[in-house]
Amino acid sequence: MCKHTSRRKPRRLNMRKWNFCAGPAAISEDVLQEVKSELLEFNNSGASIMEISHRSEVYSSVAREAKSDLIEILSIPDNYEVLFLQGGATHQFSMAPYNFGHNTKEADYILSGTWSKKAIAEASKIIKVNTIATSEGKSFSYAPDYKDWSISDNAAYVHYCPNETIQGVAYHEIPNINKPLIADASSVILSEPLDVNKFSLIYAGAQKNIGPAGLTIVIIDRDFMEYGNPNIPNILKYSEHSLSESMLNTPPTFAWYMAGKVFKWIKDSGGLDYFKTQNHKKASKLYEFIDNSSFYSNNVDLVNRSIMNVPFLLANDDLDKTFLSEAEDNELLNLKGHRSVGGMRASIYNAMPLEGVEELIKFMEHFESSYG
Amino acid sequence: MCKHTSRRKPRRLNMRKWNFCAGPAAISEDVLQEVKSELLEFNNSGASIMEISHRSEVYSSVAREAKSDLIEILSIPDNYEVLFLQGGATHQFSMAPYNFGHNTKEADYILSGTWSKKAIAEASKIIKVNTIATSEGKSFSYAPDYKDWSISDNAAYVHYCPNETIQGVAYHEIPNINKPLIADASSVILSEPLDVNKFSLIYAGAQKNIGPAGLTIVIIDRDFMEYGNPNIPNILKYSEHSLSESMLNTPPTFAWYMAGKVFKWIKDSGGLDYFKTQNHKKASKLYEFIDNSSFYSNNVDLVNRSIMNVPFLLANDDLDKTFLSEAEDNELLNLKGHRSVGGMRASIYNAMPLEGVEELIKFMEHFESSYG
Repeated sequence: MCKHTSRRKPRRLNMRKWNFCAGPAAISEDVLQEVKSELLEFNNSGASIMEISHRSEVYSSVAREAKSDLIEILSIPDNYEVLFLQGGATHQFSMAPYNFGHNTKEADYILSGTWSKKAIAEASKIIKVNTIATSEGKSFSYAPDYKDWSISDNAAYVHYCPNETIQGVAYHEIPNINKPLIADASSVILSEPLDVNKFSLIYAGAQKNIGPAGLTIVIIDRDFMEYGNPNIPNILKYSEHSLSESMLNTPPTFAWYMAGKVFKWIKDSGGLDYFKTQNHKKASKLYEFIDNSSFYSNNVDLVNRSIMNVPFLLANDDLDKTFLSEAEDNELLNLKGHRSVGGMRASIYNAMPLEGVEELIKFMEHFESSYG
Repeated sequence: MCKHTSRRKPRRLNMRKWNFCAGPAAISEDVLQEVKSELLEFNNSGASIMEISHRSEVYSSVAREAKSDLIEILSIPDNYEVLFLQGGATHQFSMAPYNFGHNTKEADYILSGTWSKKAIAEASKIIKVNTIATSEGKSFSYAPDYKDWSISDNAAYVHYCPNETIQGVAYHEIPNINKPLIADASSVILSEPLDVNKFSLIYAGAQKNIGPAGLTIVIIDRDFMEYGNPNIPNILKYSEHSLSESMLNTPPTFAWYMAGKVFKWIKDSGGLDYFKTQNHKKASKLYEFIDNSSFYSNNVDLVNRSIMNVPFLLANDDLDKTFLSEAEDNELLNLKGHRSVGGMRASIYNAMPLEGVEELIKFMEHFESSYG
């Protein structure tokens, strides 16, 4: 067995390991420790944060602070609303067309991986979807350049996924178009600064860079929001969620509270500029190692490589199981690629420090020298 | 200040107090302690339960066990599916008509309080709603007897709310009708055994007797489920959630895990028979005290009084604020009635022991003797 020895120092409490899970993903141990310390009683309130009304003063201030911290971190302009919803990005796949597909009854979608494909399938139940650009013919190994998109006159909006979690394919430039732009930013939000102004609607499931699963962040241009279809149930309507400050019904209070802790941790760490530097450093190191090896490969176009999700293949896929099992022995968890594409994937979100990526590379080196 | 003295014994750790919140509501301290102890690392997995994939072996077994424990606790028959979803009961207000209103395009609703009124408002955006019985004219002080419901020939189903959380109005008999019966059981599920066979669909937000907010339990007759509208987005379709075992997209993994802990706690406590006895005892004591007092009152018809939510008024509502503040001084939290009805409300779900209700009664007695 390949037991890579340099990992034996008692680094963290509780035998927590390097967790490369694509989502639900690793959360900073600092955040978890704080949550743990106040799990039975929050802030002298006599109860856990998860046992009190979302409308109580204690909870409201937690919720408001999380929102204002997110606004600060992402420099979200005043003309945008920030919502804390449920249902994941998948729920947004239908909410977006329900809200904005009612006039022209069609919208343009870019197909650049598994998640944009799912967005298209859901939207197609509600409106006419024009898939105006796709990389499916080339196994989603790149993201179609926005300069080549031929946008439909009648499109209510253009929808794309800036970072495809499964294929590890990313747009590193925000499309500059003359239509409302909607982005599923689930696996890339908060990884670096973002020019929110260029979007009409950004949504993101929480379980990568924000907090535990069960929470969805929506950032929406207020003018755009007001164009929404008034004749849909309130629960599907962005404007109703906005009117009630994301408390149309009981929100996922614990996940929201934890997201607030993560936002504080991001601020304390140095904000998104810090994470941008760290994330690019982590991704570059890993891609560089892969590119310099003849044993590992990543087939995504260089300009579209994700800084969050790094899929890679072994030269011989008979070794996949051995790789995963020895990785686990070396405290490197959840490196299996998505079942639809096979191979390996290292998700290196904000909570994964450079040290974790270095440990992964050391292990990969050692594995290659043993089996390559 | 009325400082009721018998409450000074060091009863619980962390200064946790008696929490009468209507929801998100109190959770057993045993459950919270267990969750706290494994918050940083679940079961030698190297990660918190909230940091691992919902599709991992570790998480899947947690999820499956929660489901099978719920089936056991409620004696749910094999021909029913149990789903763990997001969105709260409010999301069910639209999911039910989206799934089952497509053929006849109408359904019957019973209006017996704030929550059934909200269900009607949402459904009305999707189908024709026949409000076939209402107690609104009498301030929701009773629940219209099902024997007087005149059910529409064309109704796809009949929807009612067996326990209205805000008004404290309950049905203690399951309506015996010849149409599919749908119940919003959010604030009464798991308070006592339930004959699931009499329902086509039962749904419940978790944040009362199940666990933290952000999770919704759905119990649905499989045959009924298959009649559902095939032409709606997957995220709204019960049958799709069933096919994917509630993992169509990332579920609220932490809330699901915690629900599993609560189910174990229910089993260990003696199951729903135990809680039925306890809950009826708690409610009877409190109603008896209120009825024997000329200072406190509850105006709900005797046959419709809720065993979970006990609203009451003071003879003089100028004293409301004093009551609430002195209650807090005596470690009795969250007794304020809903803003739409005023007064007080004691929510006494499973996690509130008889002792807590006895403490409340002692305080109410003392308060009456001081101010009555």
